[in-house]
Amino acid sequence: MASMAAVLSKTPFLSQPLTKSSSPNSDLPFAAVSFPSKSLRRRGTVGSVVRAGLIAPDGGKLVELIVEEPKRREKKHEAAELPRVELTAIDLQWMHVLSEGWASPLGGFMRESEFLQTLHFNSLRLDDGSVVNMSVPIVLAIDDEQKALIGDSKRVALVGSDGNPLAILTDIEIYKHPKEERIARTWGTTAPGLPYVEEAITNAGNWLIGGDLEVLEPVKYNDGLDRFRLSPAELRKELEKRNADAVFAFQLRNPVHNGHALLMTDTRRRLLEMGYKNPILLLHPLGGFTKADDVPLDWRMKQHEKVLEDGVLDPETTVVSIFPSPMHYAGPTEVQWHAKARINAGANFYIVGRDPAGMGHPVEKRDLYDADHGKKVLSMAPGLERLNILPFKVAAYDKTQGKMAFFDPSRPQDFLFISGTKMRTLAKNNENPPDGFMCPGGWKVLVDYYESLTPAGNGRKPEVVPV
Amino acid sequence: MASMAAVLSKTPFLSQPLTKSSSPNSDLPFAAVSFPSKSLRRRGTVGSVVRAGLIAPDGGKLVELIVEEPKRREKKHEAAELPRVELTAIDLQWMHVLSEGWASPLGGFMRESEFLQTLHFNSLRLDDGSVVNMSVPIVLAIDDEQKALIGDSKRVALVGSDGNPLAILTDIEIYKHPKEERIARTWGTTAPGLPYVEEAITNAGNWLIGGDLEVLEPVKYNDGLDRFRLSPAELRKELEKRNADAVFAFQLRNPVHNGHALLMTDTRRRLLEMGYKNPILLLHPLGGFTKADDVPLDWRMKQHEKVLEDGVLDPETTVVSIFPSPMHYAGPTEVQWHAKARINAGANFYIVGRDPAGMGHPVEKRDLYDADHGKKVLSMAPGLERLNILPFKVAAYDKTQGKMAFFDPSRPQDFLFISGTKMRTLAKNNENPPDGFMCPGGWKVLVDYYESLTPAGNGRKPEVVPV
Repeated sequence: MASMAAVLSKTPFLSQPLTKSSSPNSDLPFAAVSFPSKSLRRRGTVGSVVRAGLIAPDGGKLVELIVEEPKRREKKHEAAELPRVELTAIDLQWMHVLSEGWASPLGGFMRESEFLQTLHFNSLRLDDGSVVNMSVPIVLAIDDEQKALIGDSKRVALVGSDGNPLAILTDIEIYKHPKEERIARTWGTTAPGLPYVEEAITNAGNWLIGGDLEVLEPVKYNDGLDRFRLSPAELRKELEKRNADAVFAFQLRNPVHNGHALLMTDTRRRLLEMGYKNPILLLHPLGGFTKADDVPLDWRMKQHEKVLEDGVLDPETTVVSIFPSPMHYAGPTEVQWHAKARINAGANFYIVGRDPAGMGHPVEKRDLYDADHGKKVLSMAPGLERLNILPFKVAAYDKTQGKMAFFDPSRPQDFLFISGTKMRTLAKNNENPPDGFMCPGGWKVLVDYYESLTPAGNGRKPEVVPV
Repeated sequence: MASMAAVLSKTPFLSQPLTKSSSPNSDLPFAAVSFPSKSLRRRGTVGSVVRAGLIAPDGGKLVELIVEEPKRREKKHEAAELPRVELTAIDLQWMHVLSEGWASPLGGFMRESEFLQTLHFNSLRLDDGSVVNMSVPIVLAIDDEQKALIGDSKRVALVGSDGNPLAILTDIEIYKHPKEERIARTWGTTAPGLPYVEEAITNAGNWLIGGDLEVLEPVKYNDGLDRFRLSPAELRKELEKRNADAVFAFQLRNPVHNGHALLMTDTRRRLLEMGYKNPILLLHPLGGFTKADDVPLDWRMKQHEKVLEDGVLDPETTVVSIFPSPMHYAGPTEVQWHAKARINAGANFYIVGRDPAGMGHPVEKRDLYDADHGKKVLSMAPGLERLNILPFKVAAYDKTQGKMAFFDPSRPQDFLFISGTKMRTLAKNNENPPDGFMCPGGWKVLVDYYESLTPAGNGRKPEVVPV
């Protein structure tokens, strides 16, 4: 209870430092301790009641897919009798995403009609004719052998690497996994070296299995960070508790520097000017799969903590939580998913920067995506009409002020652009960025991270390893 | 006048055989001789009046982009002063498509916002919030040199290979041509050997130029077939003249065999059963770019003519016309374009078969697309909700009846499937298909076509050459 209360208090990071992850309740299923009302956890289409002030979830209701406590025992018995599909770490992350309603109103791993709509239209048409955004396939691959084992069964159990059932998939549909087409339509390239493709598609099975998902228990990782993994319903509750009248989400998978902070504080200022009384920032680092040279989640969370401790961001108006999705690095396609999921968590403003969810082309010497396409595509995306897109102003280090500032095109010579790659290289080499680039406590976390990768007695830094 | 009247009469093919293409007026701009009212040709958003009974064009009005006669001279003078962009044969086909409103409400070659919506969403959102389908990029590529020549001009002239101005593009926008991404998102593969890609993208310029199009004259090809190239407005007029209360379109790029014919006559029967009094078939062969081993348009038109002559299809309830679009062979993506364009021509029913707009994978030994994806994607496509999709029943040669019939899965041994490849191989080798596969007159056209490719005195058949 203590750790949860800390997260949901107005100063989550300050009162409950991340490094104290040994608090007695931190590994308990937190839904059980943090939410007295079980009604929030009802399965299927019933979800949290939407109050005035927060944007409605996609499809009108938050679709949570976690079996209610009284039925868990019975469902576990049922699951034990079913054909089994073992989940990979990324499959489990997607199951987590689905179970909490980030992809509402999606009710499970995609069937073919949903998969095709996602690939071709980046959206799903609902029975009532309305459209919700859905740009990234949330699918579960199986191989020939698994397909044969399933046979004619209409249900399967999804099991963890230890063989324990985690969920039931019902009214299943098995269809071909058109890998090349999936990759081409999702990434706009089929070049070798796309991190998610290599991790989760290339060697995956040639079939996809969709169906209605029932997850037997809330998903926990027992990594000391579970208390920061608030579900959309929990975030909505917290945002309501804070009386937010505007919620602006900031997706990130990198350490926060003062340019990011400037943008976030400036956004709040602009929202206040627009007449909102209490805009709340949802600082929402991505917690699922990331590529090998990104900074791992636990180090990023330590870094974010320091940023709040150092007062760079105001804990009173900031909620820090982990977004459980894996990362595709699919640029304009993926940024829609990042935005759509935050609607379900209650955000009605979304900050989008240069080249969101982008990366270098894996083969050619250029960025994979045009830096402006992400914000353009996002602003036109079907199903996101209700979301206010806030395009990122470019921040850079202003040498005349000794701090991060919005780039002034009339005096370009005064500005220094420090890319993510440059930032990582400096930290790796234990060098300092210019004063004012990042708060010293946050920078130290980065340096410590790269230091932790160095084998004792070996002066050379190894390649960064995957999360 | 004579040839046009023939096309628009109730028995176009019977009364005016295609082979008599030397009729004195056949190469005249037919809009001038066939439409007393110039109001049909007004530029921009004004188009034909939609009468009850025909489906409304996308966006509500047919957008025709051909300059009215009184202003043509003035516009030509303007064009002569502008920077020039020379069109390829395929560019010209797209200009034709745009000029007549097949892509309504698109007002010219795509600007970046339209291009991105097409790539990501297969649809365009209009100013009023409504959505129209648009799955295939209609774009114009230019190279660095052309871009430099255009400089700061906001208008360019589009010119033919002879240098004569054909159109003006106004309020232009020049943006990057992301070839790899365009190909991946349109075809779902980047494998080498896609016919349209090799013909029109690989060697095209690295920039795209969009803008508002004004075409100076109706597009003519002077190939003896112009009289069959009815614009959407002309088709609507013809369909109204025939008092059509249902219009079912059949897109094809191959010779018509009796399986196709069975399907079309059966569709009419079903529409009559549904209570329609006068369903009209729009038999609508594609007239633009096709791949090298497809049968060229002029031979296909001769073949279609024979099919009508032989009474396989009823000329009383059939309109044969040429659809001027180039072919992408982009399967589920392209079939949406094929359907959407026919809405603009007045069709409210669209027949879709197995693997529409598909082809073999250019590198792997399989079809490029799942044979069922086309009809599935089409049935879910944004902006096509108004169109009734009629899935193709599979027809095959029934050996017990000696004719094409709907496949009966209870007695598969009785049926013979004759693929397009098989059909072409038989015709190439001057062999006969089973009696009842195709009317003899139609088959003879095919044999004659392949015979025409054989150099005199050389017994070997050469590879089929491009159109």
